Amino acid sequence: MSTITLEPVGVVRSLLTSRTNAPRQPDEGAPPARIDIGASYREALEGLQTGDRIVVLTWLHAGDRTVRRVHPRGDRTRPALGVFATRSPDRPNPVGLHEVTVTAVTADSLEVDGLEAIDGTPVLDVKPVLASDVGAR
Amino acid sequence: MSTITLEPVGVVRSLLTSRTNAPRQPDEGAPPARIDIGASYREALEGLQTGDRIVVLTWLHAGDRTVRRVHPRGDRTRPALGVFATRSPDRPNPVGLHEVTVTAVTADSLEVDGLEAIDGTPVLDVKPVLASDVGAR
Repeated sequence: MSTITLEPVGVVRSLLTSRTNAPRQPDEGAPPARIDIGASYREALEGLQTGDRIVVLTWLHAGDRTVRRVHPRGDRTRPALGVFATRSPDRPNPVGLHEVTVTAVTADSLEVDGLEAIDGTPVLDVKPVLASDVGAR
Repeated sequence: MSTITLEPVGVVRSLLTSRTNAPRQPDEGAPPARIDIGASYREALEGLQTGDRIVVLTWLHAGDRTVRRVHPRGDRTRPALGVFATRSPDRPNPVGLHEVTVTAVTADSLEVDGLEAIDGTPVLDVKPVLASDVGAR
């Protein structure tokens, strides 16, 4: 299968500065963050509004892409699982999924209520949460 | 921001063979599909089970990456929106998100109940849906 090339569309600006102080899971809390959007992608923000629920896709650049099995949440007393059965940032393609609420939109950025990604994390995509996503649960 | 390189971890096998017969949104229904996992990634399947809810990340290779604004669902009577406010496959980094249920697991594949992606679509990642994802809705 052939290689795929991505260009980040933006970057996370956050008070989280290292993986050790980043929450491991969404339910462990995360600070508000700003997403700065690159110049050639800003037009794609049109229509996003404060209060919208969105999914932010990030590139978890600190992840170890060689890992195939991990102990969930780093707990070695729990059996190791394949990374596709976990949300570990250590995985072949460490794309992070973050469901958040938009708190502000400017011409070149989004602010969101809480994002478990460290400062400088590349952003790959932003999508609205669909009503059908909720209905499917 | 620097370029990111991905290697697909698998490929979608589906009866959907063209974008015109692929559902545009998850709520429009999709046929069952198989995901064939590449040899170097199969160990990462360990722990996934029939009945698990997962998120499949795909590369929507038919998407037009130059598009920044679209008419939602192709309806030209509706105002155009920035692609970050839509789930259009036309977007800078056309990563598809598909929340599905696992119906079978083998050593080298997953079967899922319904996937709105055409045959041959590269798969980038597989993640479990977390209880906290549901709780957040």
